[in-house]
Amino acid sequence: MINRVAVDAAYGRIRSRVRETPIMAFDEVVLKLELFQHAGSFKTRGSFNSALAQGVPEAGLIAASGGNHGIAVAHVARELGVAAEIFVPTSSAAAKVAKIRSLGAAVHVTGDFYADAQAACDARVAESGALAIHPYDAPLTVAGQGTLGIEIEQQVPEVGAVLLATGGGGLAAGVAAALPDVEIVCVEPAGANAFAAAVAAGKPAPIEVDSVAADSLGARQLGNIPWTQLGERATSVLVEDDAIIDARYDLWDRAQIVAEHGGATAWAAMRTGAWRPSADGTTVVVVCGGNTDPTDLAAIASADS
Amino acid sequence: MINRVAVDAAYGRIRSRVRETPIMAFDEVVLKLELFQHAGSFKTRGSFNSALAQGVPEAGLIAASGGNHGIAVAHVARELGVAAEIFVPTSSAAAKVAKIRSLGAAVHVTGDFYADAQAACDARVAESGALAIHPYDAPLTVAGQGTLGIEIEQQVPEVGAVLLATGGGGLAAGVAAALPDVEIVCVEPAGANAFAAAVAAGKPAPIEVDSVAADSLGARQLGNIPWTQLGERATSVLVEDDAIIDARYDLWDRAQIVAEHGGATAWAAMRTGAWRPSADGTTVVVVCGGNTDPTDLAAIASADS
Repeated sequence: MINRVAVDAAYGRIRSRVRETPIMAFDEVVLKLELFQHAGSFKTRGSFNSALAQGVPEAGLIAASGGNHGIAVAHVARELGVAAEIFVPTSSAAAKVAKIRSLGAAVHVTGDFYADAQAACDARVAESGALAIHPYDAPLTVAGQGTLGIEIEQQVPEVGAVLLATGGGGLAAGVAAALPDVEIVCVEPAGANAFAAAVAAGKPAPIEVDSVAADSLGARQLGNIPWTQLGERATSVLVEDDAIIDARYDLWDRAQIVAEHGGATAWAAMRTGAWRPSADGTTVVVVCGGNTDPTDLAAIASADS
Repeated sequence: MINRVAVDAAYGRIRSRVRETPIMAFDEVVLKLELFQHAGSFKTRGSFNSALAQGVPEAGLIAASGGNHGIAVAHVARELGVAAEIFVPTSSAAAKVAKIRSLGAAVHVTGDFYADAQAACDARVAESGALAIHPYDAPLTVAGQGTLGIEIEQQVPEVGAVLLATGGGGLAAGVAAALPDVEIVCVEPAGANAFAAAVAAGKPAPIEVDSVAADSLGARQLGNIPWTQLGERATSVLVEDDAIIDARYDLWDRAQIVAEHGGATAWAAMRTGAWRPSADGTTVVVVCGGNTDPTDLAAIASADS
């Protein structure tokens, strides 16, 4: 198990490298606006922790990613002055692949889903000598993502529950380790329900992925480390794609915030009533990513007029 | 002169109606992210203060606006359950006019610039019996905008200077009233320089308006009340349109924040070095509005790849 000690150590390592992202009251909850993190998502936390704890070889960094983890690793490599090689599937959003390239990393597009890109990455790791950073199933990654929980505790001391979009499970696992007394709510698209499937099977189990948020939440199976952290503890909530699209538009329409679909997924659980806050403590909803093409938001806005 | 007492009174009135907008460290300054305010800009503060202090007649609210003030008045009217009538010039951004309509207000598009819309609005006020809310040249408006200064003081106690985009001058005047010991920096487009022109003339003086930020900073003359608050005190800084466009893109590229051009204008003064922080205290840069069509940001992002 990863515990708070590991998360505190991670925070010591990465604190000067990451933004303390803001919070904002919104309806009856508090939004944690992690989409404003360097490189556009929480993934920067785990990537910096992995690189700084292990040291980076001359060959640089290497990773597979649906997109956000790749952007984060490319950002970390640029900040540390080393090379990065990123494997992405064809399902990655064009805006994400463009961002990885603009950060100077070498990009390989391969396979339909994240798991395919991870397999190609694994094959390349041995010959390249670069440091591989797994997006969710590695202790240093999970501990790094958990630093988000430390900030939540500092910013919202009365926190009672945290709602987190869940793909491979790294973020939720890290925040669970950081905040042992807080309810952890894993919100997933109905079409990308790796955590719900693990709960049903009693262990991580393969799923079919089909969701508008697949480019960030499209893991085909929950990570083993996340399962250890979350299995007996986290609440599972599913939301439909329509609700995710609506929640993303709602953040734009009422708060001028441009989240990606995965970033709006936790808010969808509140907005639909799929999850209801208990009386105990404040509910924090993490808006975890903003690497997106905002064009369709403008199109919806025009259609309203 | 409007003083801190008036601003404190305004804050007491509107506090439960406005968002305490977040701050975030960014390079060597702190951003005050007022673009996430209800209705997308600081204008909601002054509009609520004006309506709540005076009471709203049955005929509702009426205002002229380059756009943001109109959105704010429409929002306030909807929240208070009264009608709103808004006069906007043809130079208003389509996204803003659409937002006013979506809030249920009656919209009249008239004249090329804000001043033309204000004249049409003034003519209508007498016959309508509605409460007119001036966008910047009224004490209650200025005191309401000043509540932003109270939040800055609470969030950044060591603040030494505040950079604010300036059009008619209401926001800068209010923050100056709230924070008598802090340097107030009025940042204007070179092509919409009402404050600089007033400084040069020794009093508010008419200007020609030609700027990418004209839809929010396009006042043809500084307000008289703002001049009283700012004339002997505020620093004047001008930035070119290219720098504003670049600053807006920079906020999107590095922080996933979608500001409007006027909202990025204060950041442009930092980014170009047109204003440099002194050693005394923290510099706060206000990102004051986000009512914009984000499509062109996506286009720039794609062109980069």
